[in-house]
Amino acid sequence: MHVAVLFFAFALTGTTLALDNGLMRTPPMGWLAWERYRCDIDCENDPKNCISENLFMDMADRLAEDGWKELGYVYVNIDDCWSSKQRDDQGRLQPDPKRFPGGIQKLAHYLHNRGLKLGIYGDMGKLTCGGYPGTPLDKIELDAQTFAEWEVDMFKYDGCYSNATEQEQGYPLMSKALNATGRPIGYSCSWPAYQGGLPPKVNYTQLGEICNLWRNYGDIQDSWDSVLNIVDWFFENQDVLTPAAGPGRWNDPDMLIIGDFGLSMEQSRSQMALWAIMAAPLFMSNDLRTISSGAQSILQNKMAIGINQDALGIQGRRIVKEKSGIEVFWRPLSKNASALLFFSRRTDMPYRYTTSLSKLNYTAGSYKVFNVFTDETASLKDSTEFVVSVNPTGVVMWYVSAPAKFNLRQFYQGGTLHGRVYDDREENAIPRVFL
Amino acid sequence: MHVAVLFFAFALTGTTLALDNGLMRTPPMGWLAWERYRCDIDCENDPKNCISENLFMDMADRLAEDGWKELGYVYVNIDDCWSSKQRDDQGRLQPDPKRFPGGIQKLAHYLHNRGLKLGIYGDMGKLTCGGYPGTPLDKIELDAQTFAEWEVDMFKYDGCYSNATEQEQGYPLMSKALNATGRPIGYSCSWPAYQGGLPPKVNYTQLGEICNLWRNYGDIQDSWDSVLNIVDWFFENQDVLTPAAGPGRWNDPDMLIIGDFGLSMEQSRSQMALWAIMAAPLFMSNDLRTISSGAQSILQNKMAIGINQDALGIQGRRIVKEKSGIEVFWRPLSKNASALLFFSRRTDMPYRYTTSLSKLNYTAGSYKVFNVFTDETASLKDSTEFVVSVNPTGVVMWYVSAPAKFNLRQFYQGGTLHGRVYDDREENAIPRVFL
Repeated sequence: MHVAVLFFAFALTGTTLALDNGLMRTPPMGWLAWERYRCDIDCENDPKNCISENLFMDMADRLAEDGWKELGYVYVNIDDCWSSKQRDDQGRLQPDPKRFPGGIQKLAHYLHNRGLKLGIYGDMGKLTCGGYPGTPLDKIELDAQTFAEWEVDMFKYDGCYSNATEQEQGYPLMSKALNATGRPIGYSCSWPAYQGGLPPKVNYTQLGEICNLWRNYGDIQDSWDSVLNIVDWFFENQDVLTPAAGPGRWNDPDMLIIGDFGLSMEQSRSQMALWAIMAAPLFMSNDLRTISSGAQSILQNKMAIGINQDALGIQGRRIVKEKSGIEVFWRPLSKNASALLFFSRRTDMPYRYTTSLSKLNYTAGSYKVFNVFTDETASLKDSTEFVVSVNPTGVVMWYVSAPAKFNLRQFYQGGTLHGRVYDDREENAIPRVFL
Repeated sequence: MHVAVLFFAFALTGTTLALDNGLMRTPPMGWLAWERYRCDIDCENDPKNCISENLFMDMADRLAEDGWKELGYVYVNIDDCWSSKQRDDQGRLQPDPKRFPGGIQKLAHYLHNRGLKLGIYGDMGKLTCGGYPGTPLDKIELDAQTFAEWEVDMFKYDGCYSNATEQEQGYPLMSKALNATGRPIGYSCSWPAYQGGLPPKVNYTQLGEICNLWRNYGDIQDSWDSVLNIVDWFFENQDVLTPAAGPGRWNDPDMLIIGDFGLSMEQSRSQMALWAIMAAPLFMSNDLRTISSGAQSILQNKMAIGINQDALGIQGRRIVKEKSGIEVFWRPLSKNASALLFFSRRTDMPYRYTTSLSKLNYTAGSYKVFNVFTDETASLKDSTEFVVSVNPTGVVMWYVSAPAKFNLRQFYQGGTLHGRVYDDREENAIPRVFL
C-alpha cells in the first residue's frame, strides 16, 4: 500500500524516468581522489600521495582488505590531473606516462580482480579545471569509446571552461555516447553545479534521464564550515531536490571528508548521518592507509549505510528547525520503516531535546527504535514524550521500524514544521530514552 | 646574557611590575567549568553534568588520579551559577544549598587534600552574567573575606551588568581586598574584555599590577571557528599584548576546548600549540571522566606544557604569514632555546612548506630540533633548507635548542615578516625533515 501510493506520487510529478543503463539503483559508494589529493602530481617529493596508479592501487588494496568492499564501497575513482597534457597521435586521451606507466586498462583489471570498479574523470571544456585536455563536443564519442575500451565503470564529467550552450549539448551527448559503447558506465554530471543548481536553469527531469548522479553545488572542502554550507543549501532547496532523486538518479552533495583533518568525531557522525538522510552517493576522499579506527567505524556503520542504501531511494527531508539550534530530519524507508535524525547546530554543550513521534508526524502506534551510532534499542509509543541529548555539532540517528503510515502528501508538498519551538522546560516526568 | 638583555628590555617598557601576591609565575593550569557545563543547574534531570559539588569533586578525582596534577593542572575552578540567588542574613554570598550541600570550604578541603586548588567566580555588577548575586563595589571587601575564609585559591571577576566607572574602581579594589585577606588568591580579571581589549581604554601596565591574568577578548565556544577568531585577534594585536605578559601577569585567550565536541585531532593539537606559544593559562573545560585517549595525550603533552610553562614567561609572536595559508610562530624560551610553530589555515591537503632557520631570523649555528607531537629529533644548520608538511588546520611544533642568539630588538619592535612568499616549487634537493 505504502509503495503503491509512492509510485503514484512519482507518476504525478513525472520524474520516474532514470538513465536507462540499469546502474546505481542505490547511491554509488566508493572512494574518489579529489578532496584529499587534489592535483598533487609531485611524485618525486610526495610519492605516497601524488595522483598515480600507485595511489589507486593502494586504495584498492585497502578497500578489498579492510572490510570496505563488502559494505558496498566498490568504486575507486580517478579525478582531475590523471592524463598526459597531450592527446596521442590518434587524438585519444592518454594517461600521464610517468604516473600511470601501466595504463588505465591495467589499473581497471587490478580493480576488477579485487571485485572493485574504476571511475575516471573528464571535462566538457577544452581543458579540465586543472588544465589537462578536456572532452569538448567533438571529442565526446571518441573519449567515451576510449573509456569503454579501458573497461572503465564510471565517468565524472566536469564543466570548467565550457559555456551553457556547450553544456546543453554535451551532457546529453555524453550520456548517449556512453550508452552506445555497450559497456555499463555510471555517469556523474557536474552540469547543475555550473548552472547554479536550481530551476529554471536546471532541468532535474532531464538530468534524471541522462545522468546517474549529479553535483548540484560547489566542491566540499576539509572543514565543518564547508559541510554546514552544503547541508544548508541542500535542505533549504529540498522541495526542488528531493523529487529529483530516486533509483538510478541521485543528487550528489559531494565527497565524505570523514577521516581527513577537519572534522571532529561528532562532526564525522553528522556528515555520515546527513548523507544517509540525503540518499547521497558515498564517495570517501581520505587516506585509507592511515585512517583512524574512529573514522573507519563511522564510515563502516552498517545501519547508516543501510539507511543510505535503502531500496526505495527516497531522499529525506528536514522536518523541524528549532530556534534552539536543534533540527530534525526524516527519511522514509522500505518496509514502512523510516530514519529520524536529530542534529544540533549548537556550540556549547549537549542539548536535551524533548519531543514525541506524534509531534514528528508519526501516526498512532508503537514503534521500535534503533540508535544507529550506539546500537541501543527501545520501544516507543507515538504519544510518548522522550528526550534526546544531542551533542554540539553532533547527531542522534534512529532507525524507526513500522508501523509507519507516513503522511506522504505532506512529504511531497514540503510540509516543514517551520520554527516550531517546544518549551521542554515545562515537560514533566519525561521518560529518558537514548540519553 | 640573554636574560640580562631581556630584563633590560622589560625595564625600558616599564611593564615589569606584577601583582604582588607571588602567584602564577608561570601560566596557571587546571580545569574550569564554564565552556563545557555553562549554567546547567538541572541536577534532577542531568545529575552528572549540573553545576554542583559533585561535578567539581568528580573532576578533582580525575585530575588527581589520571596524571593531570603532576603535569601542573591543579586548579579546579567554579564559574557562574554556583551560588544561591540570595545572600545570607549577614549579607554574605552562599552556595546553592541543594547543589553544594557541603559548602564551599568543605569542597576546598576535598581539593587541598588531593594537592589541588579551588577557584571561584564573581561579577562586578549587581548580578552575574547568569543572574546570580554579583559583587558590586560595596560588597568587595566582604566577598574577598568570605572567599579567604572558605580557603579559596583563585578568583575570577567577571564584568556583566557593571559600567566602566564601576570597573575602574572595582577591579583594583578587589585586588587590594584579596591581598588584604592574607591568603594568596590568584586573581583573574575580565575587565579588559569589557573594554574592548585594547589601549587606550585598556591599561595593560595597570592590569599587570593588579591582576594575575585577564580575559582580553570574548568567550570561547566549542568550535574551530571560535578558536580561529581568538587566535586572529591575539596575533593581530600582538604588539600590544606580548609586552603585557610575564611571570605573574598573563593574557588569557580563554579555555582549552580539547576533549569536547567541536575540534578534530589536528585542531586540538593546534589549540594546545598556539596556547603554548601565547604563554596562555591552560584551563581545560571538558569532561575528564569520559575524555578520549587522543585528546588526553594532547593535553598531557609534556613538551607543549614545558613550552607553555617556560620560566621566562615571554609571550610568543607570529613571525611569518604566508599567502599560502602557512603561518609561523616563535617564542623565546629559557636556556637560549625557542619554540617554533608551523600552522596551516588551509582546508585542502597537507602543505609542504619550505624554509630555513636563517629565514626565520635564527642566527648562524647548528640547532637541535625536537618535534613536540611526534618526538622526532634532528640537527639543523641555520642555512639548511627544510620542508615541513603541515596538515590542514594542523600544526608542526618544534622545540629548538641553543645556540639561539635571538634578535630581541626585532621581537619587541614587532618585526613580523609580512606576507613573504617563498616559491618552494623552485627549490631543489631539499633535505626532508619531519615529514
